[in-house]
Amino acid sequence: MILDGKKVAAEIYEELKNNISKLEKKPTLWVILVWENPASLKYIAQKKKWAEYIGMWFKLCQLDSTISEDTLIIKIREWNSDNNISGYLVQLPLPKEFNVLKIIEYIAPEKDIDGFHPINQWKLMIWDSSGSIPCTPAGIMHLLQSQNIELRGKEITIVWRSNIVWKPLALLLINAWATVTSCNSSTKNLKLHTKIADIVIVAAWYPHLIGANDISDECIVIDVWFNFMDWKIMGDCDFEEIHTQWNLITPVPWWVGPMTVAMLMKNTYNSYINHL
Amino acid sequence: MILDGKKVAAEIYEELKNNISKLEKKPTLWVILVWENPASLKYIAQKKKWAEYIGMWFKLCQLDSTISEDTLIIKIREWNSDNNISGYLVQLPLPKEFNVLKIIEYIAPEKDIDGFHPINQWKLMIWDSSGSIPCTPAGIMHLLQSQNIELRGKEITIVWRSNIVWKPLALLLINAWATVTSCNSSTKNLKLHTKIADIVIVAAWYPHLIGANDISDECIVIDVWFNFMDWKIMGDCDFEEIHTQWNLITPVPWWVGPMTVAMLMKNTYNSYINHL
Repeated sequence: MILDGKKVAAEIYEELKNNISKLEKKPTLWVILVWENPASLKYIAQKKKWAEYIGMWFKLCQLDSTISEDTLIIKIREWNSDNNISGYLVQLPLPKEFNVLKIIEYIAPEKDIDGFHPINQWKLMIWDSSGSIPCTPAGIMHLLQSQNIELRGKEITIVWRSNIVWKPLALLLINAWATVTSCNSSTKNLKLHTKIADIVIVAAWYPHLIGANDISDECIVIDVWFNFMDWKIMGDCDFEEIHTQWNLITPVPWWVGPMTVAMLMKNTYNSYINHL
Repeated sequence: MILDGKKVAAEIYEELKNNISKLEKKPTLWVILVWENPASLKYIAQKKKWAEYIGMWFKLCQLDSTISEDTLIIKIREWNSDNNISGYLVQLPLPKEFNVLKIIEYIAPEKDIDGFHPINQWKLMIWDSSGSIPCTPAGIMHLLQSQNIELRGKEITIVWRSNIVWKPLALLLINAWATVTSCNSSTKNLKLHTKIADIVIVAAWYPHLIGANDISDECIVIDVWFNFMDWKIMGDCDFEEIHTQWNLITPVPWWVGPMTVAMLMKNTYNSYINHL
């Protein structure tokens, strides 16, 4: 069976659209872009499209890649103190001369709709649900919850490569009382951990790392990222093998984008409501 | 075999003592105590004893339990801006009327020798080793490192009950490329996870939860807390059973206190050196 992120995202959009239609004044998604990376424009176009679809305004502040870090910080400070702005994001990646972590620290935590600010990340550690949750982990959590999957006591194996996304996800799952195993490229016996898991979440950037024999018959598989290989898009899981009657699996690459963007819209809406 | 925290702590003290003896001016351990809990005095006496042993000064600011949160915050602000103070701690627990997390946020991160400030906790998430590490997780990491135990690829099972200490520890172990499983009271098959582990770290407050049959023959067992039962002190692990030729185990309750206090002295020394 397919665990359809696109469908769940569509439901979130309809709910937000409905909520926003009842508001006197519409929320706005504010974005700062330091232009350099062409891929950023594509991501921003997606965000704009869905913001407008659900009835929000979209405002972009585009800065030239030659600006200094200080100029960006001045803009951030301006937006922090602008009472019309309830939430905004600084599009990543930034030009490599910029100290990304330092920049993120300047964003007011209550306006940080990406959930990257230290205070928001820390709240995941102390089990405080009042902060913004980073959009990809939040999307994965929402997707599981949308299937009424009880997480308490579940065996969950995470196979990760990158850093930023997986620690928040692990913390969210631990907070939900799951038994969470965090595997990486140095894990000795990965198959053992995937085999005993009720849920496998994988973003290893390693095509077909996990096949049908590596998981139990009723395992839920969330395959987050995608790989290009021989001009084909492939997941970390062998979708054709795993896509059976019993396993619940997210097809690659169609789910992660929609859920991540949907959670961004939710964070934007929440920051607006909290700001009222 | 015994993994002797007291001995490792003693080595840290000797090293710090030696380093401090070479300094022109001695560091000081500064402590704010809002007096209420008699146990706090005992902990503070330990800290004072070891600070003085290694050649540091010890300064205590004792406040009455009837003071307001604001009075405490004023004191914290004063110490933040006092250039003579390189590092300090606010002794926990605070009276229950106080918002502990809010108080901790006021401490300047670079002076936070307990490693509780959001910025220091966040640094564990982003793999940034420049912050203060909370003393109990730091003590456990140091104890493992003192035995030259390579953590990369190791199977480590953590069985926890409390929140604050275990997430930093899990993050530190993940950062060291271990395969980390976080178990709790809802875990379905705890024995499976302890059995496959190279290292088991347990603070479940459940006497003799883990016996010799639950672990492999060469498992390293770190038993952190202790339980009182029938007027006896008992660990979460059955020490008598596990204390064999092959397993490396920390006896309860003698190791955790020394390592935690030793790491506090190390954080205090480091904050002083960084402040010079």
